[in-house]
Amino acid sequence: LTQPPPWGINTNIRLTLPVVCFVWQIAMIILFGVFIRYDEESDTHWVETKAHDNITSDIENDFYFRYPSFQDVHVMIFVGFGFLMTFLKRYSFGAVGFNFLVASFGLQWALLMQGWFHSLDPQTGKIFIGVESLINADFCVAGCLIAYGAVLGKVSPVQLLVMTLFGVTLFAVEEYIILNLLHARDAGGSMVIHTFGGYYGLTISWVLYRPNLNQSKRMQGSVYHSDIFAMIGTLFLWMFWPSFNSAITDHGDGQHRAAINTYLCLASTVLTTVAISSLSQKTGKLDMVHIQNSTLAGGVALGTAAEFMISPYGALIVGFFCGIISTMGYIFISPFLEKTLKIQDTCGIHNLHAMPGVIGGIVGAITAAAASESVYGKQGLINTFDFTGDFKDRTVLTQGGYQAAGMCVSIVFGVVGGAIVGSILRLPIWGDPADENCFDDEVYWEVSAVHNTTTGWCHCL
Amino acid sequence: LTQPPPWGINTNIRLTLPVVCFVWQIAMIILFGVFIRYDEESDTHWVETKAHDNITSDIENDFYFRYPSFQDVHVMIFVGFGFLMTFLKRYSFGAVGFNFLVASFGLQWALLMQGWFHSLDPQTGKIFIGVESLINADFCVAGCLIAYGAVLGKVSPVQLLVMTLFGVTLFAVEEYIILNLLHARDAGGSMVIHTFGGYYGLTISWVLYRPNLNQSKRMQGSVYHSDIFAMIGTLFLWMFWPSFNSAITDHGDGQHRAAINTYLCLASTVLTTVAISSLSQKTGKLDMVHIQNSTLAGGVALGTAAEFMISPYGALIVGFFCGIISTMGYIFISPFLEKTLKIQDTCGIHNLHAMPGVIGGIVGAITAAAASESVYGKQGLINTFDFTGDFKDRTVLTQGGYQAAGMCVSIVFGVVGGAIVGSILRLPIWGDPADENCFDDEVYWEVSAVHNTTTGWCHCL
Amino acid sequence: LTQPPPWGINTNIRLTLPVVCFVWQIAMIILFGVFIRYDEESDTHWVETKAHDNITSDIENDFYFRYPSFQDVHVMIFVGFGFLMTFLKRYSFGAVGFNFLVASFGLQWALLMQGWFHSLDPQTGKIFIGVESLINADFCVAGCLIAYGAVLGKVSPVQLLVMTLFGVTLFAVEEYIILNLLHARDAGGSMVIHTFGGYYGLTISWVLYRPNLNQSKRMQGSVYHSDIFAMIGTLFLWMFWPSFNSAITDHGDGQHRAAINTYLCLASTVLTTVAISSLSQKTGKLDMVHIQNSTLAGGVALGTAAEFMISPYGALIVGFFCGIISTMGYIFISPFLEKTLKIQDTCGIHNLHAMPGVIGGIVGAITAAAASESVYGKQGLINTFDFTGDFKDRTVLTQGGYQAAGMCVSIVFGVVGGAIVGSILRLPIWGDPADENCFDDEVYWEVSAVHNTTTGWCHCL
Repeated sequence: LTQPPPWGINTNIRLTLPVVCFVWQIAMIILFGVFIRYDEESDTHWVETKAHDNITSDIENDFYFRYPSFQDVHVMIFVGFGFLMTFLKRYSFGAVGFNFLVASFGLQWALLMQGWFHSLDPQTGKIFIGVESLINADFCVAGCLIAYGAVLGKVSPVQLLVMTLFGVTLFAVEEYIILNLLHARDAGGSMVIHTFGGYYGLTISWVLYRPNLNQSKRMQGSVYHSDIFAMIGTLFLWMFWPSFNSAITDHGDGQHRAAINTYLCLASTVLTTVAISSLSQKTGKLDMVHIQNSTLAGGVALGTAAEFMISPYGALIVGFFCGIISTMGYIFISPFLEKTLKIQDTCGIHNLHAMPGVIGGIVGAITAAAASESVYGKQGLINTFDFTGDFKDRTVLTQGGYQAAGMCVSIVFGVVGGAIVGSILRLPIWGDPADENCFDDEVYWEVSAVHNTTTGWCHCL
Repeated sequence: LTQPPPWGINTNIRLTLPVVCFVWQIAMIILFGVFIRYDEESDTHWVETKAHDNITSDIENDFYFRYPSFQDVHVMIFVGFGFLMTFLKRYSFGAVGFNFLVASFGLQWALLMQGWFHSLDPQTGKIFIGVESLINADFCVAGCLIAYGAVLGKVSPVQLLVMTLFGVTLFAVEEYIILNLLHARDAGGSMVIHTFGGYYGLTISWVLYRPNLNQSKRMQGSVYHSDIFAMIGTLFLWMFWPSFNSAITDHGDGQHRAAINTYLCLASTVLTTVAISSLSQKTGKLDMVHIQNSTLAGGVALGTAAEFMISPYGALIVGFFCGIISTMGYIFISPFLEKTLKIQDTCGIHNLHAMPGVIGGIVGAITAAAASESVYGKQGLINTFDFTGDFKDRTVLTQGGYQAAGMCVSIVFGVVGGAIVGSILRLPIWGDPADENCFDDEVYWEVSAVHNTTTGWCHCL
Repeated sequence: LTQPPPWGINTNIRLTLPVVCFVWQIAMIILFGVFIRYDEESDTHWVETKAHDNITSDIENDFYFRYPSFQDVHVMIFVGFGFLMTFLKRYSFGAVGFNFLVASFGLQWALLMQGWFHSLDPQTGKIFIGVESLINADFCVAGCLIAYGAVLGKVSPVQLLVMTLFGVTLFAVEEYIILNLLHARDAGGSMVIHTFGGYYGLTISWVLYRPNLNQSKRMQGSVYHSDIFAMIGTLFLWMFWPSFNSAITDHGDGQHRAAINTYLCLASTVLTTVAISSLSQKTGKLDMVHIQNSTLAGGVALGTAAEFMISPYGALIVGFFCGIISTMGYIFISPFLEKTLKIQDTCGIHNLHAMPGVIGGIVGAITAAAASESVYGKQGLINTFDFTGDFKDRTVLTQGGYQAAGMCVSIVFGVVGGAIVGSILRLPIWGDPADENCFDDEVYWEVSAVHNTTTGWCHCL
């Protein structure tokens, strides 16, 4: 009907998708065989390790410190991200299904990449994994799923797998630079996960700009039920965000404090999101898009500082401003990005991840620079910022500077990485949909018939 | 079309809702700044506290005793209550969205109110919070969400926020009287949460009685999909109720026993609910309203006694009768309440919370009075009923009396508080909907178009 | 309209369903009163037990080792199984509602049956229950819910309760033989749960074969929204399967390793499922049935070996093949079973449970036989396979043989038990639906009106 876009309209993925899945999964098996082993707490030899380390009880196994948080994070990745993206009226299969595919591949590759960079044992040449590795793999995947939000409905599953392969790779490198070289703290990933993932996705979306995307305008909205499905995603993300931000913080008070801070921050975000959403309409009606997304911005913005002594009212303040900024982002910035900067951001990840991620980086830098022994205690300060080993003489002011540097690294990796990967994804071989078929599950899924009644589309049966 | 109700039909909340949200959130920030601090287990000084208290491992931090239960409770509050109320065909946004708003505000105010009454440190004038505080705040919010169930679809979000402000305040006071002054036990809140919340909501609904509510009769039912959404709420409440009733009980056997008792009690409730539901129809068909609600009554009724040595078969018996009574409540009592007592109870909270809550109070009083050293052990009896300090000479019989007194306090607070708050909510300034617009999301939400086909409403797109 | 099937078309269950519910629930109360007591870790006497056993902290209570996993398993049973079966367009009430009923009854009966066979105290004649008993009861119920998947939409709730009564009974016996007499290991229940449950359900479905089932063909498919509801079930099963396979493994490294193995195995399964699903369609489109079901096959197949030192790449390999085999099962084997063997398997449990269960048994036997002290360590080998007491001289090769024997026992129990129970269910007294009314909630549920528009069925309102 209309002119085909430059990158082709052949959406047949019967060859490419199975090939990519098989090749990559076989590669994973081989690489796991060469590199990945159980760590000492998940190995049957633990009975000896335990005796050797004078550990008196099995309950001291890291499994019991982190497994409940891990499962919460796991729910966020698969149900949270997956269902949050089901809001489109006819792209729910793609939302939840491709999210499932991308995350399942990504977490395997993440275990390898993060292992090589963070925990390769120099003597044995092996990567030893435990429950904390699983959490980190899920975190890494989150970065790629954020990026998926920007291109939702406009790419093929093969493109998503390519995007994830490179995304996880870039993630592991920037994470290594930020956490290991710069020694910045970022337990909940404001910088490492959200800022990187946000700009990675936005840049890819910019490179893949579709000037004629309004040809699929009829499919771009939500319907009543799809908005409720999306709320399942929102709520599981919102409820479990305290686990996300505390999953890999220090045992004891570190996890405890991170959970409390995130809980408070998110509560505050909800109220200001509702306030701004209501203000934005003539009669004060609320917009589901805001409630589904902006209510989560506080969790993103506390990713770095959640483990710090930001104090309960500090957490509330961060949430207060994030709700306002994120909701205004949906009202004012998203249209601007699309019109002026040619960035089509399906889920508004700029408002939910990129911007709040940057805020989180700044909050982290400031609160780190403002830390003091009087508030943290002498040992508490050392523990919180890990001022040990090579970094034992670092001051909080220096730490603040490195935190800020870390944020810049994550932006640079997101933008530059996104530009390169976006260019690869423009190749006309990936089976992406034509402009008039975007946001439509029928391109990649067997879907039961849709009835076009006189009053509009009806897909009851 | 019809005569406007006495309290006005201006549902524009563009001024009131943002103002209330902002004023209250700013008040929270200020009050948190003045009063709320991390407790010793979530403070970086814990490394010193730990050493001082001879705690050998971080796993002894209260976080690890209670955080998994906290997250389960959190899911119950936001997904459980939120989705349980989505059963109406066109009020699912309001159900899950206003539930989200009310809970997010309420938990902040609850931390303050409960802090002032229960844990204000006399020396520093501060409230020190940890994971148990978060659970208690969620519990407090549950009381207000129960009350929301009675007025679902008939009030504006501003009214809900007002209702929550007073509801949390009343809750903290009655809780203080029941738990601290009367020294009653109520770990799962049969009295403190369910009885109070139930009567608070019912009385408000009675004050706000709408004689012409049948003008929105077309919106009062469910549709196929909305009933399935509601089952998400039902199941998460049902599954996690063992965590609810055990979240703040004693470490060790206390939490263990409370979880077992609730698990058993709820299983029993399901069978009798199904039996009575089937009996109530000519051909034995089941009614989704019963399955969605009455299956939960056992959890409510075991809120007080779950931590006692009620014994496994005792738990089954409580569940057995609650399933019967609650389902019969939906069949016989709800119509009576509406017709004769002029109480319009949208979700039937009388059958799910008020009545089972009272049963729970009675069960608690009887089982407390019947407790004995032969069953509990000497120290076990002291631990379970906390017969220490001022209460170290209390007998189980006396305890039973105080339990019963506690139940009366919760009823009185619910009814009197509800009457006062209801009167405030009658003021014609809150933007509540007209009788013909009740149970309709279009009043407060941007909703995609609804198509009126010849065969009825269709909101597919 | 058509000839009534031999077993009658009277679907009135107003007498039978309430009677069965009441009789069985009262029987449960009496039997619990006689037999079931709290175990020492959930009894108030624990304060003395603890002192006696030199346990220094409440955190050593088994509750803290297993309760988070228990809650995950609980979610799998009620939301996972329940929602997975909601995929049919008009049988979602039956799917989630009867699942709820069956599981609630089954877990009570399972506590008794498993108690009598596994943990009856010879001195007191009592069964002492704790959190591990609750997990085992949920596991036992899982076997019956798997069987429900084969007959979904074709039986009455009364038949389901009968099926569960016998199913739990058979389960407890085969479990006793496999775990206690043969001393096979099967922590995640590849054999005991999935193989047994699968063949039990398939055989029942074979006995209840309906030659004219195509009379309800119009109801046998899914609609767009029902497929998304089913994905809720899929994802919660998938995410929490690591908890399922690790819930009752050894404290410490045992639970840790089982969770890691299952996490990896399932990730691998997703990729090969997607690959085969895409290959099976001319244009490479994906089929929701495969994504909903086959992605879970890896979890089933690792049920036995998850706690072994199968190594991370070993787990990936198991998942790799299970995704392929299970998806091919949906494409090729299910039609064959229906056409040639007259087995109508509504949910395809042969592909999701029976076949992967057998694979799991084989994998378990091989990995057990291949275990060595060099990999496990001397004490590790003893701990993992529990080579103590009567079995302290067993070799790994012998163990492999007993594992294989265990698998045969589970198949035999499934097939023989299913044949007997199926015959009982053929009696014309259970109120099962006529062929033209299968897969239709209107038979057993009050359902809001369905509008038949010119373009097809519409159940929007």
